[in-house]
Amino acid sequence: MRKVAIIGVGMTKFGENWDESFRGMVTEAGVKAIQDANIKGDEISAGYLGTMASGSLVGQEHAGALIADYMGLNPVPITRVEGACASGSIALRQGVLAVASGLHDIVVVGGVEKMTDLDTAAVSQILGGAGDQEWELFMGATFPGLYAMMARRHMYEYGTTEEMLASVAVKNHSNGVNNKHAQFQREITLEQALNSKMVADPLRIMDCSPITDGAAALVLAPLDSATSYNEKPIEVVASEQTSGTLALHDRESLTSIKAAKIAGQRAYNYAGISPSDIDIAEVHDCFTIAEIIATEDLGFFAPGEGGRAALEGKTRIGGEVAVNTSGGLKSTGHPVGATGVKQACEVAWQLRGDAAERQVKDISYGLTHNVGGSGATAVVNIFQRGY
Amino acid sequence: MRKVAIIGVGMTKFGENWDESFRGMVTEAGVKAIQDANIKGDEISAGYLGTMASGSLVGQEHAGALIADYMGLNPVPITRVEGACASGSIALRQGVLAVASGLHDIVVVGGVEKMTDLDTAAVSQILGGAGDQEWELFMGATFPGLYAMMARRHMYEYGTTEEMLASVAVKNHSNGVNNKHAQFQREITLEQALNSKMVADPLRIMDCSPITDGAAALVLAPLDSATSYNEKPIEVVASEQTSGTLALHDRESLTSIKAAKIAGQRAYNYAGISPSDIDIAEVHDCFTIAEIIATEDLGFFAPGEGGRAALEGKTRIGGEVAVNTSGGLKSTGHPVGATGVKQACEVAWQLRGDAAERQVKDISYGLTHNVGGSGATAVVNIFQRGY
Repeated sequence: MRKVAIIGVGMTKFGENWDESFRGMVTEAGVKAIQDANIKGDEISAGYLGTMASGSLVGQEHAGALIADYMGLNPVPITRVEGACASGSIALRQGVLAVASGLHDIVVVGGVEKMTDLDTAAVSQILGGAGDQEWELFMGATFPGLYAMMARRHMYEYGTTEEMLASVAVKNHSNGVNNKHAQFQREITLEQALNSKMVADPLRIMDCSPITDGAAALVLAPLDSATSYNEKPIEVVASEQTSGTLALHDRESLTSIKAAKIAGQRAYNYAGISPSDIDIAEVHDCFTIAEIIATEDLGFFAPGEGGRAALEGKTRIGGEVAVNTSGGLKSTGHPVGATGVKQACEVAWQLRGDAAERQVKDISYGLTHNVGGSGATAVVNIFQRGY
Repeated sequence: MRKVAIIGVGMTKFGENWDESFRGMVTEAGVKAIQDANIKGDEISAGYLGTMASGSLVGQEHAGALIADYMGLNPVPITRVEGACASGSIALRQGVLAVASGLHDIVVVGGVEKMTDLDTAAVSQILGGAGDQEWELFMGATFPGLYAMMARRHMYEYGTTEEMLASVAVKNHSNGVNNKHAQFQREITLEQALNSKMVADPLRIMDCSPITDGAAALVLAPLDSATSYNEKPIEVVASEQTSGTLALHDRESLTSIKAAKIAGQRAYNYAGISPSDIDIAEVHDCFTIAEIIATEDLGFFAPGEGGRAALEGKTRIGGEVAVNTSGGLKSTGHPVGATGVKQACEVAWQLRGDAAERQVKDISYGLTHNVGGSGATAVVNIFQRGY
């Protein structure tokens, strides 16, 4: 199969975009990515769109065809893919496969969610559909509760503290200050995080990513012709997707997400590198505990050491591995279908050296880690410069 | 890219399956297909699942991971794809790409919908999400109304009659009598169809496919090793997907579905054949007018001649081209995400010579035509024997 590169990236502001429609946001992100790629619309021959729950959130299924139509791309096939909060990364992976196979040359990838038109209770219920409807959601278990159980167990097994959890939020807010696309561009203190409202013990509001509207997009091309479009193409070195148990009660462990661990190992193997080669990582911090677990599952730190590492600043810009330089889901916001695509945008900007005030120096490899639900889908991608 | 074959097929009974769950139906169809393919579960390395609206219909998104988990396939990635009523064919096409590329060898493909747990009005509203939410559904336009407008225009332009529409239903019910998986295994008369309740003028209840529960599944393998699994593999000769305008008001014509026409032409070109080479076709008869338009768009009959051809028996088993030998959506039922996969099951059974009482003789090529919404997504596949 051919090597594949990202030649264009674009995203909307993430936030409560009450003036923006579902279709309008995808189009804005898509046009930005197309302009960034220096391609013409008629060079595009396929697309993939990640959205988790547009049917329930805005009454619109069939979103792939909607976007092909609205962007003037007909009859180009745009395929909607869904794997809960990992939908965006799945779209990227399918796009990579379409180019790698030789079937398509220029492929657009999008991710979107329009979430703030409904009240929080309704959105929580809809997001609960990412877990096991019959065994979890029907019994009242929504995601703050599920991740709270993972946090409690991590505390019990490893001595992880509320301060460690809060330090993740403080870092991500600090990174988000320098990201103009972020929903929250403001610092928070450890005290503010530790004194914020309890949502699901031990997770407070500052441990939770927000409900967000937003879209992000990428343009992919074969690596060997990528520089003819963009002088700084970013190679997708590995893209691995795995499945795990949907319901939490079926897991061997609550302190690790097995699917993510396997996806990470496969991605490192495919790329021929090890965790220590990764300089920046956008990981799925839907809750602060999720970032701690992610940094352990990805092999950056030993099991149980992720919380301490965060508290000690090892995941800050300038630390051992810069985690969530964008601000992560916590500060950038989490329009679920868009998140995986946004993660790839951030890594591309960092590898190009275009990340301005949040730029990490001397990067060789960047990684994205995107999880669906409480870990039943995981996608890990590895990127490097393609020029 | 490698050639790809279907080595296993399976489906549930289609109908009001009140005793069967969403996950249970996919598993039943999947296990049947796996057994038919003579493979072991651990030979499977990827899967694609088509479902349109499981989030709204049963509260369950993240259906790919659910099925990987429930079928004991973890960590194999199963990706949910959605293109409204064409979701099943999109799953097949993505599966074909995964095998053709060389990335995966054995891939499972599923399609499912669980629709009868809600009342008809709620289901109509949810299915309306396959059209343009902002310009059609919000204004009250659900699918019977949209297809009724297409039918009226076809009558106006070409003199198509209610008898011609009804003759499609009569034929498909007649074919369905011999299909044990069909929701309705009974004949209807032209008089019964013409005197049935009006739904959206000129479409009566007998012009409409029903609301259905069901699942279907396929196993794919590289053609060159396919006979080591199944002595009668069926080659996927072409698989083309296109997009068209989502809203009806943006169409150049109401009497043809442009996306389907282009998908058909591309599929014929890829296969190096012409419409007259097709012996059997499973087409998307969500309404009787849709079958008439399909037989014109696919080049079986000239524009405007589809209705007359149906009335004259040219699409019956033994006619010029046997259309919807399974009974079509009208008689087999239309669990939307499952339909495209079921169409491929039927063509495979026919090409293998395993279609019993509804077997068509001397078949070289079979075709499936699957449409999302009122035609914003179209998938056309062409099949022949791979042995």
